[in-house]
Amino acid sequence: MRVLREVRVLRLGHRIRRDARVSTHCALVAYAYGASGIAFSGDEDRGLIEKVKSAVRRWGGNFEVAYEADWKSYVSGFRKNGGYVIHSTMYGINLPEAIGGLREKFEEKDLLLIVGSRKVPPEVYELADVNVAVTNLPHSEVASIATILDWLFQGRELSRRFQNAKIRIVPQEKGKRVLESV
Amino acid sequence: MRVLREVRVLRLGHRIRRDARVSTHCALVAYAYGASGIAFSGDEDRGLIEKVKSAVRRWGGNFEVAYEADWKSYVSGFRKNGGYVIHSTMYGINLPEAIGGLREKFEEKDLLLIVGSRKVPPEVYELADVNVAVTNLPHSEVASIATILDWLFQGRELSRRFQNAKIRIVPQEKGKRVLESV
Repeated sequence: MRVLREVRVLRLGHRIRRDARVSTHCALVAYAYGASGIAFSGDEDRGLIEKVKSAVRRWGGNFEVAYEADWKSYVSGFRKNGGYVIHSTMYGINLPEAIGGLREKFEEKDLLLIVGSRKVPPEVYELADVNVAVTNLPHSEVASIATILDWLFQGRELSRRFQNAKIRIVPQEKGKRVLESV
Repeated sequence: MRVLREVRVLRLGHRIRRDARVSTHCALVAYAYGASGIAFSGDEDRGLIEKVKSAVRRWGGNFEVAYEADWKSYVSGFRKNGGYVIHSTMYGINLPEAIGGLREKFEEKDLLLIVGSRKVPPEVYELADVNVAVTNLPHSEVASIATILDWLFQGRELSRRFQNAKIRIVPQEKGKRVLESV
């Protein structure tokens, strides 16, 4: 029987005011694209964590949101438990070249996907098992999370349905339709 | 001979202060994932437009950035010229169901991909030829642009190289390497 492996996301160096929206986007994308949780380091932001947890309670599924004061211990703990660490950076190996190796690792290991905010400490490049770029052009950590997860899960993550959802969209060609259970 | 069609992005309702970072991410993702340009409506934000243009001058390729005060005329003009309009919204048809139709349209028509900021005017749902969701869960317009373009271009957009780049990353397993021409 194939054991289901999981992907976690670690968002480094969150800054409460400045990163509020982009960090929220990172968390919701990690959630919607099939990661099993996100951890934030940097500023401890209870409001952000509560906001994401509240979305997950409404929309369903299982998704953990946590704050990790000491990201280095978190990363080494993850590796000690047999996990494989991917750092998303525009300087790394471009995803089309890297994806074969990532999928192989994902057959046998849990993955941790690290994304930075502004300036990432140089040690991250060394601590990671692999540094992966999405295009080697500057764009967005939100898009990188989306695309790396989408390529890992090969699009299947986009079609999940959560049994425990309190609110659910009924897809429409035009307009909006929402089912809500109280 | 197959004529190469293009995808343009329209970001509705940009707000100068509040949307500065997310709109920048939208533009850079549209650029990095193979769209041929982005137009903003809402607040006119010269700083944002100049910032994106300056990135394109450095990193290469051709990518148009513009402000459109009247988004309705812009959209109807695009359709009158034979283009096909996609509105990205969590309420629409989920991408795995929609992609076949989108790829067929893309064989013969240019595409316009509309993404909103906060609240999208109801007419957008009607004006669009199709409303497309990426998961029917709430997440991020940045991720939606990335994934819709990536599915349309089937991953090929991630491997483009620009001949006119002034700066270029040499992908590394560890660390950073950048080639810059003055």
